[in-house]
Amino acid sequence: MELREWFAGEAAARGMAYEEDGNGNQVAWVGGFDSQARSTSGGQARSTSGGQARSTSDSQARSTSGGALLLGSHLDSVPDGGAYDGPLGIVSAFAALDRLRADGFTPSRPIAVACFADEEGARFGVACAGSRLATGTLAPDRALGLKDRDGRTLAEAMSARGRDPRAVGRSAWLDRIGTFVELHVEQGRALVHSGDPVGVATSIWPHGRWRLGFEGRADHAGTTPMEDRRDPMPAYAATVLAATARATDAGARATFGRIAVEPGGANAVPSLVTGWLDARAADDAALAHLLDGILDDARRAASGAGVRLEVSVESSSPSVAFDTALRERLADLLAAPLLPTGAGHDAGVLSATIPTAMLFVRNPTGVSHSPEEHADDADCAAGVEALARVVRELA
Amino acid sequence: MELREWFAGEAAARGMAYEEDGNGNQVAWVGGFDSQARSTSGGQARSTSGGQARSTSDSQARSTSGGALLLGSHLDSVPDGGAYDGPLGIVSAFAALDRLRADGFTPSRPIAVACFADEEGARFGVACAGSRLATGTLAPDRALGLKDRDGRTLAEAMSARGRDPRAVGRSAWLDRIGTFVELHVEQGRALVHSGDPVGVATSIWPHGRWRLGFEGRADHAGTTPMEDRRDPMPAYAATVLAATARATDAGARATFGRIAVEPGGANAVPSLVTGWLDARAADDAALAHLLDGILDDARRAASGAGVRLEVSVESSSPSVAFDTALRERLADLLAAPLLPTGAGHDAGVLSATIPTAMLFVRNPTGVSHSPEEHADDADCAAGVEALARVVRELA
Repeated sequence: MELREWFAGEAAARGMAYEEDGNGNQVAWVGGFDSQARSTSGGQARSTSGGQARSTSDSQARSTSGGALLLGSHLDSVPDGGAYDGPLGIVSAFAALDRLRADGFTPSRPIAVACFADEEGARFGVACAGSRLATGTLAPDRALGLKDRDGRTLAEAMSARGRDPRAVGRSAWLDRIGTFVELHVEQGRALVHSGDPVGVATSIWPHGRWRLGFEGRADHAGTTPMEDRRDPMPAYAATVLAATARATDAGARATFGRIAVEPGGANAVPSLVTGWLDARAADDAALAHLLDGILDDARRAASGAGVRLEVSVESSSPSVAFDTALRERLADLLAAPLLPTGAGHDAGVLSATIPTAMLFVRNPTGVSHSPEEHADDADCAAGVEALARVVRELA
Repeated sequence: MELREWFAGEAAARGMAYEEDGNGNQVAWVGGFDSQARSTSGGQARSTSGGQARSTSDSQARSTSGGALLLGSHLDSVPDGGAYDGPLGIVSAFAALDRLRADGFTPSRPIAVACFADEEGARFGVACAGSRLATGTLAPDRALGLKDRDGRTLAEAMSARGRDPRAVGRSAWLDRIGTFVELHVEQGRALVHSGDPVGVATSIWPHGRWRLGFEGRADHAGTTPMEDRRDPMPAYAATVLAATARATDAGARATFGRIAVEPGGANAVPSLVTGWLDARAADDAALAHLLDGILDDARRAASGAGVRLEVSVESSSPSVAFDTALRERLADLLAAPLLPTGAGHDAGVLSATIPTAMLFVRNPTGVSHSPEEHADDADCAAGVEALARVVRELA
């Protein structure tokens, strides 16, 4: 909530027209560059402004398509995450626009900065919920029924915050966007290896999140012979090891980062172990093959332990290839390398309907989703410079 | 708290003198049988009564030692546990005394019923905390520093409830006890196999609870190649499987019923996985051997994954053999079979300093620490009858 206020404040400080959609996505429209883009002074004021792209021959040459150029990323984080994943893209967007304004640049199309809501899905389990709802790829009914760890639904959480759950759904402001460029800290070491501060994304690996519930029978930890148990914990453990081995062999990724155990007493055999599997691979077929293998192993482990396995999909994202012409153009412009990523992003969601590109900023350790996540100041400045060049090129 | 009030109310309803010690243990002294045992009418009134054993030749013959005869068990439970583990012993004690009073029985020594605090250790991790503190086998400083899942210490929790943490420690009332008999629901099926409603305990398996902290490094679940991770989850999983296999092979028990994961996001490689191992075996050497093997496996798994392992003992209880003369005498009296148990009990703690016996009541499925825990009404009545006969024999 504090970061959302910060975003609205930054927009107001720049005289940008600010709006929020019913999904909690925040958008600030550039004013000042372009007399057709109206601005408001209040950070919370809603606006339908955004203007129209000017049809000069110059702007025709620069634009990849009609509509506004959108920059931005997200400000939410995983629990105990780092400072760069998300915020770097938003801070860099504001900084790039500041630089262009100082340089006297006049854009030929409207420009906006977005902060997408709930990119990490840390509370309700579905990643990129804000952009998925805005584009219509996540159904409002499904989203509103999602529950947090305490069993509270998204609808209840929104109501408690004074937000109207009925406002959730497709966002009209997205119809005004012609191109989206998201800058993000790299979450691997490809740029360390290539020696570049900035890179351009080719694609996002397909990925998904599955909830595996292993249901056994609670028993006394001291008196129940091992052979009389229906203990779900060893079945869960076998599944973790199988998933790790399969992902390693396939050059893919499988992670169990969250678990819940019932009843959760140290001296009680668990009745239920729920594990969340995050799985990703280089292409859709490879991911399907990985998942099939892991679930086969899980079923075998469960059945051997007299345990019932229930699997449900929490989210599933097919492979995303970013707009080929746009990514080649930006890589040429910046003399930057092209690289794929295993992480999901709002850019991946928007790319299904809007020409989209991503810039990555070098991360010395590649570590992400951790307080150790980092980018050197000089590389952050190079990211801002690259983003400013992209705006000059596209707007 | 509701059950504690119930206990005090039952004591008051029977005109028993009620006291609580600084560890939260509740004691109700029988009045009415014995003019020397003073009673109070208020359930919360503290009393130092208890009287002295009468030195008749009859009582000499009946008593196994000087001092009062203590019955009782505990009222706390594991999370989502059953209705019998603990409460059956206390309800049966009251019921047995009611029957003896109705029969006009006159005891030759004081009789008390105890409700021991925090037998399961569900919140602060140390089982039998109430009886361990009362007997001095758990140091007050260590107990007061124990933390619950939210990081709150026992001292803080006591203060919040208006209890004085400085009152924790050895309990004077225990010095007045000559013999302890705990009735408990069986947590296995030995009595099902032998066809008896009631049995007498020979011994308690040695057991302990160890906290294994696997510390790795948080990372992004999508972008971090499997080989670059320091993921503690597979190391934990390998340890669970190793413990299960070793305990099965040895005819022992190993259980991981509780786990905590940090940061706990589905799309973050965990930085820390903490697992609680409950291990038990038929004798002290077998348990030490089992534990050594499991910890060797855990260290190997951790080291292979670049993960640091930290092991700490939460509780450790050596093998308990109940008073030989007493258990033989009660088994003869009741024509009941003798059987060992893998579960810890307050009776095990007290047996180190006070002649102690346990009676078990048949459990059709053997299931315990689960809502399925059960004893048929007829067997519960047989337990009360057996306990009444034991009181006639010993008091």
